[in-house]
Amino acid sequence: MASTAARAISLDPDSKINPDIQKERDTATFNTLELTYVLDGGREITERRRYVESLAFNDPDFNCKDVAFMTREEAYTNSIRIAILCIKKLKALDIHDIKEQMWYRRIADGNDMGQLGLHGSMVLHTLRNQTSEKQMAKWVGAACNWEFIATYAQTELGHGTFLRGLETTATYDPTTEEFVLHSPTLTSMKWWPGNLGKSVTHAVVAAQLYTKGKCHGVHMFMVPLRSLEDHMPLPGIELGDIGPKMGYKSIDNGFLRFTHARIPRENMLMKYAQVEPEGTYVAPPAAKLSYGSMILIRSLIVGGMGRTLAQASTIAIRYSAIRRQSELIPGAGEPQVIDYQSQQLKLFPYLAMAFAFTFSGKQMQQMFAQSLDAVSGGNFNVLPELHATAAGLKAFTSSAATAGVELLRMACGGHGYSQASGFPLLYANEAPACTYEGENTVMLLQTARFLMKCVGALKSGNPAQGVMSYLAVPPQAHCSASSEADFLNPKVLLDAYRHKAQRIIMQTAENLANTEKSGVAKPLAWNQNHLYLIRAANAHCHLSVVQTFYSALESMDAPPAVRKAMMTMFHVYAIHGISENRGDFLQDGYLTGQQLDLIDCQLIRLLVEVRPNAVALVDSFDFHDKHMASVMGRYDGNVYENMYKWAKSAPMNQQEVKDAYHLYIQPFLKENIAQAKL
Amino acid sequence: MASTAARAISLDPDSKINPDIQKERDTATFNTLELTYVLDGGREITERRRYVESLAFNDPDFNCKDVAFMTREEAYTNSIRIAILCIKKLKALDIHDIKEQMWYRRIADGNDMGQLGLHGSMVLHTLRNQTSEKQMAKWVGAACNWEFIATYAQTELGHGTFLRGLETTATYDPTTEEFVLHSPTLTSMKWWPGNLGKSVTHAVVAAQLYTKGKCHGVHMFMVPLRSLEDHMPLPGIELGDIGPKMGYKSIDNGFLRFTHARIPRENMLMKYAQVEPEGTYVAPPAAKLSYGSMILIRSLIVGGMGRTLAQASTIAIRYSAIRRQSELIPGAGEPQVIDYQSQQLKLFPYLAMAFAFTFSGKQMQQMFAQSLDAVSGGNFNVLPELHATAAGLKAFTSSAATAGVELLRMACGGHGYSQASGFPLLYANEAPACTYEGENTVMLLQTARFLMKCVGALKSGNPAQGVMSYLAVPPQAHCSASSEADFLNPKVLLDAYRHKAQRIIMQTAENLANTEKSGVAKPLAWNQNHLYLIRAANAHCHLSVVQTFYSALESMDAPPAVRKAMMTMFHVYAIHGISENRGDFLQDGYLTGQQLDLIDCQLIRLLVEVRPNAVALVDSFDFHDKHMASVMGRYDGNVYENMYKWAKSAPMNQQEVKDAYHLYIQPFLKENIAQAKL
Repeated sequence: MASTAARAISLDPDSKINPDIQKERDTATFNTLELTYVLDGGREITERRRYVESLAFNDPDFNCKDVAFMTREEAYTNSIRIAILCIKKLKALDIHDIKEQMWYRRIADGNDMGQLGLHGSMVLHTLRNQTSEKQMAKWVGAACNWEFIATYAQTELGHGTFLRGLETTATYDPTTEEFVLHSPTLTSMKWWPGNLGKSVTHAVVAAQLYTKGKCHGVHMFMVPLRSLEDHMPLPGIELGDIGPKMGYKSIDNGFLRFTHARIPRENMLMKYAQVEPEGTYVAPPAAKLSYGSMILIRSLIVGGMGRTLAQASTIAIRYSAIRRQSELIPGAGEPQVIDYQSQQLKLFPYLAMAFAFTFSGKQMQQMFAQSLDAVSGGNFNVLPELHATAAGLKAFTSSAATAGVELLRMACGGHGYSQASGFPLLYANEAPACTYEGENTVMLLQTARFLMKCVGALKSGNPAQGVMSYLAVPPQAHCSASSEADFLNPKVLLDAYRHKAQRIIMQTAENLANTEKSGVAKPLAWNQNHLYLIRAANAHCHLSVVQTFYSALESMDAPPAVRKAMMTMFHVYAIHGISENRGDFLQDGYLTGQQLDLIDCQLIRLLVEVRPNAVALVDSFDFHDKHMASVMGRYDGNVYENMYKWAKSAPMNQQEVKDAYHLYIQPFLKENIAQAKL
Repeated sequence: MASTAARAISLDPDSKINPDIQKERDTATFNTLELTYVLDGGREITERRRYVESLAFNDPDFNCKDVAFMTREEAYTNSIRIAILCIKKLKALDIHDIKEQMWYRRIADGNDMGQLGLHGSMVLHTLRNQTSEKQMAKWVGAACNWEFIATYAQTELGHGTFLRGLETTATYDPTTEEFVLHSPTLTSMKWWPGNLGKSVTHAVVAAQLYTKGKCHGVHMFMVPLRSLEDHMPLPGIELGDIGPKMGYKSIDNGFLRFTHARIPRENMLMKYAQVEPEGTYVAPPAAKLSYGSMILIRSLIVGGMGRTLAQASTIAIRYSAIRRQSELIPGAGEPQVIDYQSQQLKLFPYLAMAFAFTFSGKQMQQMFAQSLDAVSGGNFNVLPELHATAAGLKAFTSSAATAGVELLRMACGGHGYSQASGFPLLYANEAPACTYEGENTVMLLQTARFLMKCVGALKSGNPAQGVMSYLAVPPQAHCSASSEADFLNPKVLLDAYRHKAQRIIMQTAENLANTEKSGVAKPLAWNQNHLYLIRAANAHCHLSVVQTFYSALESMDAPPAVRKAMMTMFHVYAIHGISENRGDFLQDGYLTGQQLDLIDCQLIRLLVEVRPNAVALVDSFDFHDKHMASVMGRYDGNVYENMYKWAKSAPMNQQEVKDAYHLYIQPFLKENIAQAKL
């Protein structure tokens, strides 16, 4: 079935499609565009997205050289140029929806990061949700008009995920009605906030509030950092870039050191807590969604990881369709490497994972929206589950996805290591998801804490609720499957994951209780069971992803051929997950060794089933070549000639004989040759 | 027990040691230096190494800014400067031993790659082993005197590990007694060889030899590429840099395209095969160690991966000793993060793996040397085992080590992502080990082929030999261990790994036979069993590493305290390996779920045992701060103040207000503010 997508997403729509990849598209069993509609949420959305993308794609202002060819200074300057151009153009184009703006930015940015992104996300979200009405009137409009540029400054040199440990102080001075911001130690310097080093004029700063000699914990403050006249740091403010990182080349993650810098009292964000002019602290009236913006970002990471894997799979699968190597049948010529089972074992499970995480991301955003509604309605009971789910899934998906990107890069052999593949930038820019917005291990332990509380409640006779109701299901001793085909039954698969999660969670609770019973103090007992607690959190998250994938299939509005292809992806995700974590299913005899053999046979069978649809499946992600910025992942499959072109355009090649020759190589060789002649 | 190593390896020997890290050193149960002697191979070697390192360390010519602060052009130029300086200085210092030269280079290079490294390794090895006497006289001396600079050009744009697929042709022209080198296709361009783009004057080139109209397969040719006068490419030669990569920033990996370039007949390397003046091809007289230099490099990678993990563990463990975060006991202050079990679970198994791979590397080099001796004595039977072992261990260790580096980086939280940690460069420069010198999956399949041949031989009644003799051991149905302590018995551990490898290999052979019996042609059956074959190769390699580690312990000449600390590392490596691969031990019931519970308990107990020695263990690797080039891995533990210093020295901070402000930010803000005032 021919895809109609070619014209819309190819960087070079007039190029001839590589016949090896055309053949793949011709023999797919479903129409890729129908799947694109499902992923986007409907045909209208796909069409609108393509239209918005085309506006950026056809704009010559966004044509610039590969970021890989830029120095850090060039990348920074260019990314500021692009960011500001985008803001202006989106305004002129009357595009205000955040999602649509993101579609546009992605193409405009090419393979670079979105510069100045925190202003419109974390900062605006915080200003909207934590300011008094008066503050909102003053700042939200100005922020939307970009009358200042701000970042969100929370992390310090010495403290990240552990917010209570933050050291920056904001001490109220009633004589001038000002807060004095100070960095009392080296480790209290703000460190990492994006755009803080050189770009922003303001920051929303997290600091320990002191008034009348007493500390009231972390609160947020709106702090001007640089003069709006000449961009010089204001008195008491030291700013700088934190230096190069693994990725984020164009972003000026920065540091900020306060030396008794003063801001007006009104610059404390006062929707909940307040400090009165004479210095009285007024505590927030009720529980609040205090870390709302952090949970939001974690929720977004889940789907983002699906997108990351989708991009990596697209590159690796398209390249595997045009790369020919070695031999399968003597004398029959070199096969496409996608025909090797070992290659399929690398490609297809991560492709399936890309879909799994995409659906989990949608579900996570829905859960976030529903929880916000509940909270607005005064129901705060949903928060622990929301927090635990967002934390766990953020960790589970980012760990798996970043490992997957590297595996898919290596599936491209040596060429995956070239920046031409697009992989090095993709990895370097996505890997920090494992450590930012809550370090993954800390996140899993927070999920585990929720799970242990649920077990405790269950044991105290409270019924298990919501996502946790599986804890109360009476355990089944054995899986009843007796053939390969039995493992295609979703109920068999879901039961297996449920059983595993239940067993590991209950066992972990028992281990924890036993440690405590042996006389170890509660917090130490917790630490002595990290091994089990992390396993429990992962098992819970794995189950959640499998369940969500299946639910998405059940409610999917798509033609049968698309549903069938997606069901195969579900099977690959669930069955590969059992094969890879076989020990967890064998440990208590729920699955037998013989059943695991059947699982492996089924996995091999599924690879054969995926094979003809692999290219069509990645085409359905509908990544524009300009966004992918991968020579190897090009829609047209013309990899080699474009790798050559790309290399020739690299800055190193703009000089045939380098300075290093004249400076060092030539004198060295001449001397050695002259000596040899003596 | 205080370490005496401080003065020798600290970048800043006068700095005060961070008390958190000093405390760790004071309470270690063994003398780190005694372990350093073991790792180096004796006290004299350690002392000599430190002396040679100090020569480079004290030389101001090698003081240069962090490579992370350099543009690619700067890094390239500087690395050529350093490489040539090293060659000259080593000559003046009369240091000719390759190992000693490497010690010196490492310090001189700091955190950069060794530029021009292929000339002295692959090229010289090939010239020494594949040339006629006359050729040797002409080229080996000149190469040692650096009268030319060469690289080894094998890989092409379209072909890597599959050598038979190389497309470059060398066609003999008897009328001029020359070979005509040609790149008949785009994909036949040489692609990737280090230093090929801009630096070298010559290359040893792999090409398909044609004479009298017949192809005789891949042979090696010595090809001048650039004029020794002005470095311009010679007629018929096109050269260039392949563009930026994930790492290897300073190295000019290059491409080379031939257009009927001519070289004299004598430039074919003629030790084995020859082409006579009138064009007759003379085949090599006997079997030969044809891929000797590749096996050598693979052997070296094994130990290199131990070193890579050692470096990564050093950074992560030292940092974990000074980083304090969150709370363990309420009110007791923030603990060192190394006190969290979840942190220990990341750090200690990879520390143990660093030792395991180091010993495997030593064993691999010994095996290579012994095999070379055997081959010189006419015994070629050792080659299949050598080849299979080097291929498998190269893949097994590089996959595990590169994943470990990333895990250890993330164990440092957000700061691991900063180039100040040293991790981003370490990972980017080590990760290609998974795809170069034989792509890992291809390597494992070659090992599997050897294993399947051994099973075949065994079934035909030939006794299993050498490393493979475990295949013939009658399988034991169950492990007899019944307590945590039983799993500290090395025999119990070795038996478990042996059983697992034997079971998986025999089962794989059976699966393969069954596929063939079902009527599938042999090569297709092989492909349909990749899943199992790769598992078999990994199980064999894992066993080999466990066995080698234990053998090293048995023959270790060291004080009891050092032996005890190493025995703990062995236990961690072997027991963590069972816990992580539990399914492979549970599958046939060799271990029960209850025994796996004991394994987990033992693992937790071992973490507690390692804890007091962790810093001392990494100190024993004796990395000089200048080689590590990691602010976070500093010997003195003074991380935060030096991160701040490092950041301030970054190029981005040499200008308080950037050009991007004047060009884009200022006009944008002014316009928005002006509009708002309207």
